[in-house]
Amino acid sequence: MAPIRFEEVTKHTTADDCWVVIGNKVYNMTSFLSDHPGGPQIIIKNAGKDVTKLFEATHPAGTLEKYLPKECYQGDLDMSSVPDSVKQEQKKEEDEEKARRAMIPPLGQCLNLDDFEAAGHQAMSPEAWAYYSSAADDEHTLRENRNVFERIWFRPRILRNVKNVDCSTRLLGFPSSLPIYITATALGRLGHPDGELNLTRAAARTGVIQMIPTLSSCSFDEIVQERKDGKPLQFFQLYVNSDRNVVLDMLRRAEEADVKAIFVTVDAPQLGRREKDMRMHFGGEASNVQGSNVEKRDEGAARAISTFIDPSLDWEDLLFITRNTRLPVLLKGVQAWEDVVQAREMGLAGVVLSNHGGRQLNFAPSSMEVLEESVHELKKRNLFPSKNFQLFVDGGFRRGTDVLKAVALGATAVGIGRPFLYAYSAYGSDGVVRALNLLRDEIEMDMRLLGARTLEEVVPEMLDLRALHARGAVARL
Amino acid sequence: MAPIRFEEVTKHTTADDCWVVIGNKVYNMTSFLSDHPGGPQIIIKNAGKDVTKLFEATHPAGTLEKYLPKECYQGDLDMSSVPDSVKQEQKKEEDEEKARRAMIPPLGQCLNLDDFEAAGHQAMSPEAWAYYSSAADDEHTLRENRNVFERIWFRPRILRNVKNVDCSTRLLGFPSSLPIYITATALGRLGHPDGELNLTRAAARTGVIQMIPTLSSCSFDEIVQERKDGKPLQFFQLYVNSDRNVVLDMLRRAEEADVKAIFVTVDAPQLGRREKDMRMHFGGEASNVQGSNVEKRDEGAARAISTFIDPSLDWEDLLFITRNTRLPVLLKGVQAWEDVVQAREMGLAGVVLSNHGGRQLNFAPSSMEVLEESVHELKKRNLFPSKNFQLFVDGGFRRGTDVLKAVALGATAVGIGRPFLYAYSAYGSDGVVRALNLLRDEIEMDMRLLGARTLEEVVPEMLDLRALHARGAVARL
Amino acid sequence: MAPIRFEEVTKHTTADDCWVVIGNKVYNMTSFLSDHPGGPQIIIKNAGKDVTKLFEATHPAGTLEKYLPKECYQGDLDMSSVPDSVKQEQKKEEDEEKARRAMIPPLGQCLNLDDFEAAGHQAMSPEAWAYYSSAADDEHTLRENRNVFERIWFRPRILRNVKNVDCSTRLLGFPSSLPIYITATALGRLGHPDGELNLTRAAARTGVIQMIPTLSSCSFDEIVQERKDGKPLQFFQLYVNSDRNVVLDMLRRAEEADVKAIFVTVDAPQLGRREKDMRMHFGGEASNVQGSNVEKRDEGAARAISTFIDPSLDWEDLLFITRNTRLPVLLKGVQAWEDVVQAREMGLAGVVLSNHGGRQLNFAPSSMEVLEESVHELKKRNLFPSKNFQLFVDGGFRRGTDVLKAVALGATAVGIGRPFLYAYSAYGSDGVVRALNLLRDEIEMDMRLLGARTLEEVVPEMLDLRALHARGAVARL
Amino acid sequence: MAPIRFEEVTKHTTADDCWVVIGNKVYNMTSFLSDHPGGPQIIIKNAGKDVTKLFEATHPAGTLEKYLPKECYQGDLDMSSVPDSVKQEQKKEEDEEKARRAMIPPLGQCLNLDDFEAAGHQAMSPEAWAYYSSAADDEHTLRENRNVFERIWFRPRILRNVKNVDCSTRLLGFPSSLPIYITATALGRLGHPDGELNLTRAAARTGVIQMIPTLSSCSFDEIVQERKDGKPLQFFQLYVNSDRNVVLDMLRRAEEADVKAIFVTVDAPQLGRREKDMRMHFGGEASNVQGSNVEKRDEGAARAISTFIDPSLDWEDLLFITRNTRLPVLLKGVQAWEDVVQAREMGLAGVVLSNHGGRQLNFAPSSMEVLEESVHELKKRNLFPSKNFQLFVDGGFRRGTDVLKAVALGATAVGIGRPFLYAYSAYGSDGVVRALNLLRDEIEMDMRLLGARTLEEVVPEMLDLRALHARGAVARL
Repeated sequence: MAPIRFEEVTKHTTADDCWVVIGNKVYNMTSFLSDHPGGPQIIIKNAGKDVTKLFEATHPAGTLEKYLPKECYQGDLDMSSVPDSVKQEQKKEEDEEKARRAMIPPLGQCLNLDDFEAAGHQAMSPEAWAYYSSAADDEHTLRENRNVFERIWFRPRILRNVKNVDCSTRLLGFPSSLPIYITATALGRLGHPDGELNLTRAAARTGVIQMIPTLSSCSFDEIVQERKDGKPLQFFQLYVNSDRNVVLDMLRRAEEADVKAIFVTVDAPQLGRREKDMRMHFGGEASNVQGSNVEKRDEGAARAISTFIDPSLDWEDLLFITRNTRLPVLLKGVQAWEDVVQAREMGLAGVVLSNHGGRQLNFAPSSMEVLEESVHELKKRNLFPSKNFQLFVDGGFRRGTDVLKAVALGATAVGIGRPFLYAYSAYGSDGVVRALNLLRDEIEMDMRLLGARTLEEVVPEMLDLRALHARGAVARL
Repeated sequence: MAPIRFEEVTKHTTADDCWVVIGNKVYNMTSFLSDHPGGPQIIIKNAGKDVTKLFEATHPAGTLEKYLPKECYQGDLDMSSVPDSVKQEQKKEEDEEKARRAMIPPLGQCLNLDDFEAAGHQAMSPEAWAYYSSAADDEHTLRENRNVFERIWFRPRILRNVKNVDCSTRLLGFPSSLPIYITATALGRLGHPDGELNLTRAAARTGVIQMIPTLSSCSFDEIVQERKDGKPLQFFQLYVNSDRNVVLDMLRRAEEADVKAIFVTVDAPQLGRREKDMRMHFGGEASNVQGSNVEKRDEGAARAISTFIDPSLDWEDLLFITRNTRLPVLLKGVQAWEDVVQAREMGLAGVVLSNHGGRQLNFAPSSMEVLEESVHELKKRNLFPSKNFQLFVDGGFRRGTDVLKAVALGATAVGIGRPFLYAYSAYGSDGVVRALNLLRDEIEMDMRLLGARTLEEVVPEMLDLRALHARGAVARL
Repeated sequence: MAPIRFEEVTKHTTADDCWVVIGNKVYNMTSFLSDHPGGPQIIIKNAGKDVTKLFEATHPAGTLEKYLPKECYQGDLDMSSVPDSVKQEQKKEEDEEKARRAMIPPLGQCLNLDDFEAAGHQAMSPEAWAYYSSAADDEHTLRENRNVFERIWFRPRILRNVKNVDCSTRLLGFPSSLPIYITATALGRLGHPDGELNLTRAAARTGVIQMIPTLSSCSFDEIVQERKDGKPLQFFQLYVNSDRNVVLDMLRRAEEADVKAIFVTVDAPQLGRREKDMRMHFGGEASNVQGSNVEKRDEGAARAISTFIDPSLDWEDLLFITRNTRLPVLLKGVQAWEDVVQAREMGLAGVVLSNHGGRQLNFAPSSMEVLEESVHELKKRNLFPSKNFQLFVDGGFRRGTDVLKAVALGATAVGIGRPFLYAYSAYGSDGVVRALNLLRDEIEMDMRLLGARTLEEVVPEMLDLRALHARGAVARL
Repeated sequence: MAPIRFEEVTKHTTADDCWVVIGNKVYNMTSFLSDHPGGPQIIIKNAGKDVTKLFEATHPAGTLEKYLPKECYQGDLDMSSVPDSVKQEQKKEEDEEKARRAMIPPLGQCLNLDDFEAAGHQAMSPEAWAYYSSAADDEHTLRENRNVFERIWFRPRILRNVKNVDCSTRLLGFPSSLPIYITATALGRLGHPDGELNLTRAAARTGVIQMIPTLSSCSFDEIVQERKDGKPLQFFQLYVNSDRNVVLDMLRRAEEADVKAIFVTVDAPQLGRREKDMRMHFGGEASNVQGSNVEKRDEGAARAISTFIDPSLDWEDLLFITRNTRLPVLLKGVQAWEDVVQAREMGLAGVVLSNHGGRQLNFAPSSMEVLEESVHELKKRNLFPSKNFQLFVDGGFRRGTDVLKAVALGATAVGIGRPFLYAYSAYGSDGVVRALNLLRDEIEMDMRLLGARTLEEVVPEMLDLRALHARGAVARL
């Protein structure tokens, strides 16, 4: 095949005829559009362009080889045909990024997790920020994930000899220096070239557990191999593929990699609409044609029909998974106590109460309210506490006080996602370590001030929940 | 009659002597002022002027012939007498409109119904915007219509095989692709020359039902004849005239036009005070005379005594209507459960719980609260659910989540008005189609994320209503 | 006595030696300072000055003759000694007032009572505005007086033949065209030279009742004599003087003037601290001396020891009043249901539930909450409704909906004060008439939309009170 | 020893090698860093500098001699070696302070305690302001300390002869002219060179009691000796040292100094994180080294291990204290009713319900809510009211109404801290006297308006507590 000239590539820019350049190779993506887990829109927007940088920031090594049909490859790019204007554009982007990152405050000035959000915002491209920070619809659930903590107050106790406090615990029997784990998030290299490896390193340095995402942008193997001396311990978050052989293969590889537990995501039969993120995709010419194709709704369709995440997943499929692995299996994304009880009765090892960081269904409840109800209902049935069933929560946790409120309600540990992404986007692995150590400082201090020496002593009686359900305060004036 | 010179027209500018020009004809409106359904003020403000454009934007063809007494006609306008300054003023208005509309964003950038409100605001004249967007008094009910949704949260269920979801339903036995209908609003041509026909076309293209308003600015016949192959299905909203023969005539024409149901408006014995709209009428000289005529209160009086909408309407009159049509009859504008029960017991086909978009009584409750109470009271009396009695709601619905909350509470479908007016004011029929398709996308996604495959599976247990009545949060700080 | 030169006057400017000029006469106010009902501070601030204008705006004719000891008179002012700089200062003030008033909007543009507040603010001097608009401490009660209405919602009824509505009623047996009366407020000439006479004229023109204040700035006789053909009907608000002979004299004069009832103020044993008003008194040199006299607390003391309003007033004294007049006696300023019950049991003709416009005790409750509780407690004791005992309310009423909410709860009528002051400050009597007619328009419309033809049909069942006591929404974020 | 040159001092600027100059003497602080009660960070930040001014503003006379090991002394400073640039820097700071203080408003313009906060902010250095005004984490408890008063409303009574009101009371049997005492706060000379002596003088002039802090910046002896004729009465706040002999010595000295009671602080086993204060410490070079030492967490450690405040303090230790003093012993910092009951049962003389001004555990409850619950629980056990056990509260009290709400709930008196610090920082002792007299004015007036002549007549029935626990109103919109 003769090399393809750049001006040829730039002619294929529509949903029906869509080419891109990745790493000096030219691909025709048209037939693959509807199979792209991230939706077709992001590819169509970049049709006719060299997308190497964006692609590498969002996909693990080997992705093209593994998932893209061979016939998509069209030939190599004639490098001499790339016009100066394109090169200058790339140079400009790099300069902008350099200028942005020069404004990041020194790590020592980050005193809490909100400071890392500000630093991460500074470090990231607008596209990466939009992807990470966005949430569903008008983002009520995103805000509620923070608001709920302002409706839970403490009842601190005094005179309890709190010279020594110990905030370590065990998750599913595995030790953790904190009641915190690093939860799974997608597209980790958007913010930093080392992506999820930053989290692996920080988890090892601080003694916490990392949950590896299915949609990592470093490969599963890279993340597992980053362990040193068996540290850190790792869980695996599983998106269930429509092809069950893919699932079996994932389970097998997880077992071989000495992963400790499988967390099956159950709150994403379809990816949520994140409008802040969607607005980032405007700017191309296509969207400016008024009234064209108003009946066609690619995005929605695409979100629904991905084989990557099976929308038909049900309780029966869970049995298929538990039968095909010796690892403990948990559900991630439970949002009603009835499903917690069902998971317990089915013999699963636990659940993560979660609304997916507010990114799926707007007006889904905060995990804290579901936690309180679930513990109440489990206790009514004598199913809690239990050695064999643990409750986890995530969504909106930023402070030591947040974590201890969940522990007091009955959670074993708390998953934290976005703040660590922001931390490593600005500071690499060191940022995540500092974030975890700040949390440890807060938790130890808060335990002393609460009058609790161990997490067992952080009891429900230390909370004032009278305002927990008073969600009615949001009003347009 | 000799043609009348423009300077003659400009001499008749008061409530006691009021002339206007419409379509090159001169009319003396003085005797008609108190019969004008829209109130005398809007005519007095424009006395002595050529009002052709405003008149045509707000009245169906044939209105003058049908309603204005013949003796009002004074003669034809001497076109050569129109001064240049008047022509330049008209030119200026057209230029301003052109400039405004040039700023409308591309249709593809509208991602939700609020985006259409912004686009519609951009597209409309300030007068049209004031008319459509205004509401009663200090607009508490207008805001509450949105606020109430922030006090209703979901309890989503998982693992339910939601590969295929179906959001179609039946309204009074008639199929609809969505639990949504296009509700009746007045003066549709203020925002777009095709007026209500935009809605007819969009309803046909998307498979939803249109409710035709009594106060449409296209004529009833035009709207009915816009149907193609019997699409869309149509309902008729009825303002009951003091002259019952007019009512009988309307019913007969509705039946002949194959309209499917009659919705009698019961929340407007007098039109509400919309101050934002009233402030638009200032600027003329009359209002600047301090202290003149403070005892005279034309507007209030006019609002009360219109024969167009009979303020004496009562339950007996409803019997008159049901006896004189074979169509199903429903009430539109019910605001207390007691009246819902009475409508059910009287054998009506249903009710629309509605506060008229917040335009009538300020501090009328949101339809969602009335819905919750009505279902509770009907169930107590074993009157719900029922094949023969359906509940509809309108007011403030903007999101798929809003619609599904109403469905979960027991509503068959949700009426939407203003957003579609905004959509066609900016984009014509295409805008309405996109708005409906965005709602469909949201509803299908939300059903998947809730764990419901059909609207029947959207059940009350999926809602957390604990904060529903917590209206106390509005405070001046 | 030789005329006194202006420069002599300017030497007496302290609390221990305080002269002023009123109407070309020089007075030594030192010994009178602590007897001044308005407190000594306002006099001290103006010591050494010609205060004619301020004095006349705040005191009825004959005040000096009646209340100031003869020995205070020092002699006449030598007019030729007044320096040009003083005259220029007076000229500047007049110019500023003229400029301010030129910006008042036309009366016809006032569409609701809030519009009159804006116009009144424009019309008044900063001092008058501070006096009228201020309230106690941080003004929580002032705001709560408005906020409470946002926690009371309607339950409107339909299909009730509301062609004719009648909003007239009887107060203590006397007819009123509205469930509204003009309540008593002090210093009425601060905003307009005709002072309270504006209210008398407007009450006559609209058929409502006026309550004459003890602290009027027109004299009692002037206000009574402004009646034409016995219109309007008038009540009298009584501050009980420490000297009971003064009280007896007031009662006798009220009876002779055909006043219909006596309203004894019971919420002002000491005048409240209104800091906005107090800050207006700064600017003089005295207040700039740091640390001088910090132990001396004249104001507080003065507020307490006035003989003008007797702080020792108790229930026994009420018996003294009822025994010494044949007029009905009511309490004005009741704030707890226990005192309502006691007033009823004592045989009084009624009470005004009021917190003095938020000007006395901060965190006193809104009259609406006290009304709801009082009716509940009276009904429990079979004391309500009753021919011989009526409930009135004031504080924060601005809208027809506000008034009807009070009527639905059981109030006979609603007192309105500040809005009418603002109205006549900007527009004289015409402003008050328009304000009342706007209220009438709103009330008639609201009754139609509620489904009530008479005030008797405005019943408690038309209110949704579930959020009434939800006062907890005020939060610093 | 030869004098040390300034340039030598400037070479020792790290945590491992840290010198400072105090009063022309050079000290090596390295070994003392972890023993510094205020944490090492504040010293490290100032390493290599002349810190005389800061040191003297925050430590009593004799501190160096008493606490710093002799071997830290390195020699005298060679004064001639101080470079001009250092002297100019000192001059600049002095000029800035002078400019700031010139803007303080006259004392007479302070009308309430918030005005003193504004004046104090103006008077203080940014560092002092950050130290005094800061609170824990995101400062929810700091704001709640004020917010809670907006959820407590009055039920005022009328006609009670309130000519004479008396707001004096007895604390632990000792007379006070107000239900207020001056509570203990640290580092009093940061805002004014006379430090805590300002409070001693103001307490004497107004007849209230002063609580002397362990961490005063004037020495205990100085504060005690400032008394004239036995005025004011004084309490002592005790931080329990890990070395019990230090505690015994403190108790002995308190008894000898005729202190009336011991208040043992129990809410500070570790000092809270006050981020506003911590951010003040940035600016030095050390904090700008990205990623250095992220695992090292000096501050947190330091906060925990101080021997100055013993984190192992428990109920047993309290017995040790009560056995070793004849003075009444109370707990300061109780935050749950269970601990109130335990203190009562243990025979202590009372407790201060307090969250340490919001500076320790964020989301600790307001003392008002704990007060209401504690009284309820004590009454249930017939332990309240009692001659031998009194309840005190502090945190957020600014108004006479705040104080009377606490008294109505059952508190004997209210501690006020920050406002008096702000008052003397701006105005010295006079400021504190005026602040107390303003409070007295408010309290006397509020009692009259409530219908209470003595504090005994300020009863629970005068409060409306229905909204007390409605803390749910904080929402991000």
